[in-house]
Amino acid sequence: MDLQNELTERAAMFNTYWQRYLQIKKPTVLYEASQYLPSAGGKRIRPFLTMVSCESLIGDAQKALPFAAGVELMHNFTLVHDDIMDHSLLRRNLPAVHVKFGEPAAILAGDLLFAKSFEAILGTFVDFSMFKQLQQDFINCVIAICEGQQLDIEFEQRKIVTEQEYLDMISKKTGALFELSAKAGGLIGGGNPQEVAALQTYGMAMGLAFQIWDDYLDMSSTTTTLGKDIGNDIRNGKKTLIAVHCLSHATGKEKKLLNNIFGNRSASEHDVTKVYNLFRDFGSVEYAQQRALHYVNQAKDAITLLKQSDAKELLYQLINYTIHREK
Amino acid sequence: MDLQNELTERAAMFNTYWQRYLQIKKPTVLYEASQYLPSAGGKRIRPFLTMVSCESLIGDAQKALPFAAGVELMHNFTLVHDDIMDHSLLRRNLPAVHVKFGEPAAILAGDLLFAKSFEAILGTFVDFSMFKQLQQDFINCVIAICEGQQLDIEFEQRKIVTEQEYLDMISKKTGALFELSAKAGGLIGGGNPQEVAALQTYGMAMGLAFQIWDDYLDMSSTTTTLGKDIGNDIRNGKKTLIAVHCLSHATGKEKKLLNNIFGNRSASEHDVTKVYNLFRDFGSVEYAQQRALHYVNQAKDAITLLKQSDAKELLYQLINYTIHREK
Repeated sequence: MDLQNELTERAAMFNTYWQRYLQIKKPTVLYEASQYLPSAGGKRIRPFLTMVSCESLIGDAQKALPFAAGVELMHNFTLVHDDIMDHSLLRRNLPAVHVKFGEPAAILAGDLLFAKSFEAILGTFVDFSMFKQLQQDFINCVIAICEGQQLDIEFEQRKIVTEQEYLDMISKKTGALFELSAKAGGLIGGGNPQEVAALQTYGMAMGLAFQIWDDYLDMSSTTTTLGKDIGNDIRNGKKTLIAVHCLSHATGKEKKLLNNIFGNRSASEHDVTKVYNLFRDFGSVEYAQQRALHYVNQAKDAITLLKQSDAKELLYQLINYTIHREK
Repeated sequence: MDLQNELTERAAMFNTYWQRYLQIKKPTVLYEASQYLPSAGGKRIRPFLTMVSCESLIGDAQKALPFAAGVELMHNFTLVHDDIMDHSLLRRNLPAVHVKFGEPAAILAGDLLFAKSFEAILGTFVDFSMFKQLQQDFINCVIAICEGQQLDIEFEQRKIVTEQEYLDMISKKTGALFELSAKAGGLIGGGNPQEVAALQTYGMAMGLAFQIWDDYLDMSSTTTTLGKDIGNDIRNGKKTLIAVHCLSHATGKEKKLLNNIFGNRSASEHDVTKVYNLFRDFGSVEYAQQRALHYVNQAKDAITLLKQSDAKELLYQLINYTIHREK
């Protein structure tokens, strides 16, 4: 099985399914603002994970489609609101929702997508007891994401963040949704407790690897490839694992340089490059790559107990893909 | 039964119950921001309505408590986000959440309250089929509120809004939640379709009366009593029923006066008073009072078919109270 083909095919199947949640009604501005980001594409990795996790147990992904739709709707809701909070101008190479439709419509669009995500999961074909667990997991995940976003914002104001604090933050902001995506697929697929726990561990480890790799990509990206400004993270004092590592190892004049430039919104391109070079010199960029690889291995180890299947093979390919995405 | 006593007693019972959803955890800023508005008091009219509606059918309100908690959490979520969109500075005579905690924490606090509202309704002790209906109604209500808020914002930019458009907007922005509160109480109380429909009609009519009366109170309030600036609505060009009525009846120089001042954010106190006097001269204030009374009667008529009970008596008192609240 080829991962790219499978991602493309399943994204197409998924997009057909979840269109029902994105119909344009009146007032049109609200619905256009809600539809804008979900329709802008994206690889649908989270719903893919839910579907393939389910398939790894029962050989069929259809049963996981409604919950997968809920996961992606919820993901899009958090992106719309995060972009307002972070004053981000671009998302998926397009103007962010609040830039295009204004902030009030963007807040409402996020709220609407959130509501729709609960409508989607309500269509999951399971018994009431299982549904209660799935919805509670879904809610806990949203709460974790809110906590993670709040921590992320607070960290930008702090001089020092420990690696443990950083990991706690990304496990909430990013890890929780990958964890939910995989775990829910396992629950819907009727997995036994060991299988569900394996998928849950896989999901969280994948989320951590994904976020660390994402921070790494941001640190060296250009507007044309990732849709974010180079050095944005440095100027905002964003506590990525790279920054956390470098801040905890730098001393003397390098420490002073970091104190002056990292988190300085008016830092020049030249100064930003200096900090970026420090990140390289202290081995922080390499460290982040190694840690991402560590979580990739953790994810692989977790699912060894699943029986062999095409879906399991896809899970292996997916976790490898996490750290081989293009810049 | 005395309504004020019952409101106070049930609000106390309700507040004890729903504290579980408002525990402070880390990151504390997020949870303090989430707890701030729900803890600032309020009469808990919506959960009261859910509880009393249930009680009118089975003589007991306990079964409706979890859903009532969900309703109030959801109401608070919408208030937190609305205040950001409307740039409101005060709510319940306190600084709005975004004023006290900053906008990012306020957006997240609203999202957290929204998530918690779904946790609350998940505790409703009904079968799966009934739960699905309750949750779908809950979701439809949130969506209606988002639509209503969007329309309200759009109306501020428009010169003319018809009475029908105004009624459609407030039926979504305010009516839908009262409708849900009463209907859900009826469903949880095991009401037959006629009883549930009666409570639903009662709730919507109460919501319309409540909103029209609220606009009327705003039009003549002082900061010390309602926590809103006098004339705020006039300067924002807010399309209340009073404004809608006056705008559709004024001609000649009065029309010109309205065009110049209504919706002019820098209008003087003197000019605002002129517009307010126009509202009186055209009978628009009186018209709004009459329309509120019309919906009060509609609500009363709707519940005549319920069997006599203390709870039914409370519903009569509650609808009268809607248009006899103090300024």
